[in-house]
Amino acid sequence: MPNPTAAMLVIGDEILSGRTRDANMYHLAGELTEAGIDLAEVRVVSDRPEAIISAVQALAGTYAHVFTSGGIGPTHDDITADCIAAAFGRPIDIRADARDLLAAHYEKAGIELNAARLRMARIPEGAELIDNPVSVAPGFILENVYVMAGVPSVFRAMVASVLPQLTAGAPLISETLQIDRGEGDIAGPLGDLAEQYPTLSMGSYPFQNKSGKFGANVVIRGTDGAEVRRAIEQLAAAFEP
Amino acid sequence: MPNPTAAMLVIGDEILSGRTRDANMYHLAGELTEAGIDLAEVRVVSDRPEAIISAVQALAGTYAHVFTSGGIGPTHDDITADCIAAAFGRPIDIRADARDLLAAHYEKAGIELNAARLRMARIPEGAELIDNPVSVAPGFILENVYVMAGVPSVFRAMVASVLPQLTAGAPLISETLQIDRGEGDIAGPLGDLAEQYPTLSMGSYPFQNKSGKFGANVVIRGTDGAEVRRAIEQLAAAFEP
Repeated sequence: MPNPTAAMLVIGDEILSGRTRDANMYHLAGELTEAGIDLAEVRVVSDRPEAIISAVQALAGTYAHVFTSGGIGPTHDDITADCIAAAFGRPIDIRADARDLLAAHYEKAGIELNAARLRMARIPEGAELIDNPVSVAPGFILENVYVMAGVPSVFRAMVASVLPQLTAGAPLISETLQIDRGEGDIAGPLGDLAEQYPTLSMGSYPFQNKSGKFGANVVIRGTDGAEVRRAIEQLAAAFEP
Repeated sequence: MPNPTAAMLVIGDEILSGRTRDANMYHLAGELTEAGIDLAEVRVVSDRPEAIISAVQALAGTYAHVFTSGGIGPTHDDITADCIAAAFGRPIDIRADARDLLAAHYEKAGIELNAARLRMARIPEGAELIDNPVSVAPGFILENVYVMAGVPSVFRAMVASVLPQLTAGAPLISETLQIDRGEGDIAGPLGDLAEQYPTLSMGSYPFQNKSGKFGANVVIRGTDGAEVRRAIEQLAAAFEP
């Protein structure tokens, strides 16, 4: 059985403007790979309703799971919940259980639950809440879309709470071989190996070290660890001095 | 006149697998913002021809400029040039000027220009080469698509050589105000300010500091620096103790 596929949608101008370097994509990609779920596509879109709605519809219709990050806070540019509702044609309003979570949290903290904070209790009809152990305001799951916060500490906590719920495929085993030769020398033997092991995926990731020399990390991935090992050993043998 | 829009397409499995943390998107986003070009969307796709071709077609048809990163090296998983050719229905073959660049470079380095390395001279018909001052193998421009390498040092060098060619809009001025208050307190005054300055874009980027307290960086962007300054000062005044 092939692994389930997933996509991620990063929402918000901070990455597109170059202000913030992405951390959530990197975190989610690692977690999904470990769980045996193939992250097949990522899109980053700005805080415009049309951009968010059409990306959600395209990704939710193509992949088994879609994870979003960003745009669920209290400010006027946080429009993700409304856009997800619109993408699925669902009504959205302040929901009692989400409001109660916020009310209890802010009362304890001695902070006013004002109109802006109450926006974080707007949840599309039929969604399931995602626990936020960091700052309480919940994420939610609607159909196959997991809507999570953009603040990295909150995003990570939400990912940790939803991942165990997902039906994962066989975990992906990956091994890496660093070869201190130009990719042009690696390409021939690696191409032959890829043909010989059609069920494994092989990628070559070139680098240039501090002294300016080129090399590459070759990563071989597959669900059969013994096969991955054999392929790595065969490749290593081809580059022994 | 609104700023020209751009999209980026990151090609390759290394980011989707969580192996590599993106650096090129972050770099390009900053450079484009400085040049007055709006990066409106980023997509990250895997090394599958259908995924690359359909993303290139969708983005090239929507935005003024499309920048790609990755997949132009010598190994079997480097299929970007062929996919770009396919996306525009152009033939592709080894091109004499690109081959001469490689031949001169490898001859000087005493390295064989083998079949794998020659793949890097495959250029779609009608494309213009992009100079690669780091490792010679060129990128190329076809229609409104700028095809560049994935290795960050090479990507940056190629961006530096293509950016001055682009017709840029008015540079975007941005100012940031750090407010050590929860976003729920910031939302009201910020929303009012956004209504008062419809030509400025305002974003709130929450953070949690090491002692666990929440705050936000509010970024105000616009092409009129004096107006950006007025809005920032007005916001700062609203949060003076």
